[in-house]
Amino acid sequence: MAKGRLLVSIAGWEAEGWVERFRDMGKGREVVDAREPYDPATIDYAAVWKPAPGSLAGHPKLKAIFNLGAGADAVLADPALPDVPVVRVVDPDLTARMTEYVTLNVLMHHRRVAMFRDFQAGKSWKSPYQHAAKDLRVGIMGMGELGKDAAEVLIRLGFQVAGWSRSGKPVAGVEIYGADGLDAFLGRTDILVVLLPLTPDTRGILNRDLFGRLARDGVNGAPTLINAGRGGLQVEADILAALDDGTLGAAALDVFEVEPLPATSPLWSHPRVTITPHNAADSDPQATGAYILNQIDDFEAGQPLRNVIDRAVGY
Amino acid sequence: MAKGRLLVSIAGWEAEGWVERFRDMGKGREVVDAREPYDPATIDYAAVWKPAPGSLAGHPKLKAIFNLGAGADAVLADPALPDVPVVRVVDPDLTARMTEYVTLNVLMHHRRVAMFRDFQAGKSWKSPYQHAAKDLRVGIMGMGELGKDAAEVLIRLGFQVAGWSRSGKPVAGVEIYGADGLDAFLGRTDILVVLLPLTPDTRGILNRDLFGRLARDGVNGAPTLINAGRGGLQVEADILAALDDGTLGAAALDVFEVEPLPATSPLWSHPRVTITPHNAADSDPQATGAYILNQIDDFEAGQPLRNVIDRAVGY
Ligand SMILES: NC(=O)c1ccc[n+]([C@@H]2O[C@H](COP(=O)([O-])OP(=O)(O)OC[C@H]3O[C@@H](n4cnc5c(N)ncnc54)[C@H](OP(=O)(O)O)[C@@H]3O)[C@@H](O)[C@H]2O)c1
Ligand SMILES: NC(=O)c1ccc[n+]([C@@H]2O[C@H](COP(=O)([O-])OP(=O)(O)OC[C@H]3O[C@@H](n4cnc5c(N)ncnc54)[C@H](OP(=O)(O)O)[C@@H]3O)[C@@H](O)[C@H]2O)c1
Repeated sequence: MAKGRLLVSIAGWEAEGWVERFRDMGKGREVVDAREPYDPATIDYAAVWKPAPGSLAGHPKLKAIFNLGAGADAVLADPALPDVPVVRVVDPDLTARMTEYVTLNVLMHHRRVAMFRDFQAGKSWKSPYQHAAKDLRVGIMGMGELGKDAAEVLIRLGFQVAGWSRSGKPVAGVEIYGADGLDAFLGRTDILVVLLPLTPDTRGILNRDLFGRLARDGVNGAPTLINAGRGGLQVEADILAALDDGTLGAAALDVFEVEPLPATSPLWSHPRVTITPHNAADSDPQATGAYILNQIDDFEAGQPLRNVIDRAVGY
Repeated sequence: MAKGRLLVSIAGWEAEGWVERFRDMGKGREVVDAREPYDPATIDYAAVWKPAPGSLAGHPKLKAIFNLGAGADAVLADPALPDVPVVRVVDPDLTARMTEYVTLNVLMHHRRVAMFRDFQAGKSWKSPYQHAAKDLRVGIMGMGELGKDAAEVLIRLGFQVAGWSRSGKPVAGVEIYGADGLDAFLGRTDILVVLLPLTPDTRGILNRDLFGRLARDGVNGAPTLINAGRGGLQVEADILAALDDGTLGAAALDVFEVEPLPATSPLWSHPRVTITPHNAADSDPQATGAYILNQIDDFEAGQPLRNVIDRAVGY
């Protein structure tokens, strides 16, 4: 059987590099650059990142869409998306990078890095009692590929870790709360780590009401928010208000309602907000390319696609 | 057999609390406060932190000295120290805290927290490629109780971890260099983590010459120094010079030649130095007290003392 043709359609990232990479790694597979004119009737697969809405319609032979990231919300938001499987990236390298980000940010809040930085600026050798990890309760919203791995490292470091997921399915060593356990989950959480996908159910979930239900008796004072899921999960005006009235003690945000974060956002200069430019888990382009091309090869050899999005639930 | 009397002699920390704690936990054991007059001939054990030199001499019945921390260099520095076993603290809680500190500081350098903080200050959404942990080589000097545990977590996070120790004895999963492998160890190290005891052999080891032998081809540029061992290991003038001529990229220091670090030290305000007030691994007073009292009980029941310092080598 001839190798199907792969369309590469990328916005926001550097498209040229991806086209070349797929050509280099494709072992003769034809790779079509969506920025140039092509015949939609010849396309079998599409590898995409934030494709323009409607741009994937009208490809009669299209068999599968491969999203170049772990979260496929941007693709699923297209009302004219063809009814073919959408595959997302699950890659140990990406997972490891997210676990770095989560571990770093949980430890920074636990060990009060900002406070000790202020002490250093004042040449002050103050040393208020430093609690151990076992005294802090971390809660992870989203116990999928990423949440589970981060939990494992946080447990190894000694934190009390709980997780929240739609199904509430058990994860070894972690206290898991299901959809209806949200209140209890929040009420025992000092550091909230968000690794949810953006879906109709999760959009705007990180709001004033939710922040008000977090634990108020943590050893380090007001609770901390760490969001590396998607910006659409959070209501930024609510984060700012919650920081200012003490409902939240601090926030580390890797994702934003609008990206790049506009220069006008007050988040940039808030003293208790840490901003990173959606780089919690950069994907390794080589690994992502190999993952997609391998899946296509396997699919053409008769195997089922893996990590297919359930479009009914949106992730 | 009657319970032996325990002398408590503490400087630098709050002595009163320790005396009370030993009395509370001692199940009837007599606890003597060294700040009050007492008869030296009645003392069986001493629990000490930085006791005044000479102050432990002349206690004819003294059977063992318990150092209230993991590093006993301050006690061993006493030329009039009686010739009895000196026991140090080995406590899983203390070890876990040090692993928090090491993990935090390695991740802060790996993920370039200072650079992204500067970007945030400039409201800049820049995102230069972020390497993965697997691209960085961490080298740990001192593979004892603390070094081994930190190595385990860093390996789980994906770093390339090597260790250096006097004996060079193997540690699972870690590339170990012995005393004569120092050059090779330094040459492959981007982030140097120091968890050595202070002994005659290690005093001043962190100097200009050593910094110059660290790897110069790391993905994040010049190498990083993280010292949580003892201040006497480092030559602070050399650290400053190495930072300023680019031999070192950054330093995180928890310990200093003189503590508290004098306000006149240029380390306080160096932009690439992170200072913490010797709190990398606060001991949990309750756990330390229990550890010492249990050892005394066991000793009186005929068991050997554990974690005794080898005075010939100084740790
Ligand atoms: N910032 C970055 O650089 C970056 C990089 C990669 C990924 N991400 C984000 O991280 C997200 C998670 O990735 P992943 O690979 O871990 O996804 P995943 O394996 O699909 O896991 C998603 C988790 O969220 C839970 N969940 C989904 N909807 C929920 C709801 N309505 N209520 C409660 N729980 C819900 C799922 O519950 P069940 O277990 O019950 O299914 C599952 O545990 C991605 O979708 C992406 O948005 C960000
Ligand atoms: N900053 C803080 O808050 C804090 C808290 C606790 C402890 N500390 C410091 O951390 C130090 C280490 O604690 P630990 O419990 O891990 O001690 P440990 O179990 O005695 O381990 C010491 C390690 O250093 C190695 N070593 C000693 N002298 C050496 C030399 N001359 N050359 C090469 N390697 C040498 C030993 O080698 P071998 O394996 O061959 O014996 C061993 O691996 C303590 O001594 C203390 O100074 C600091």
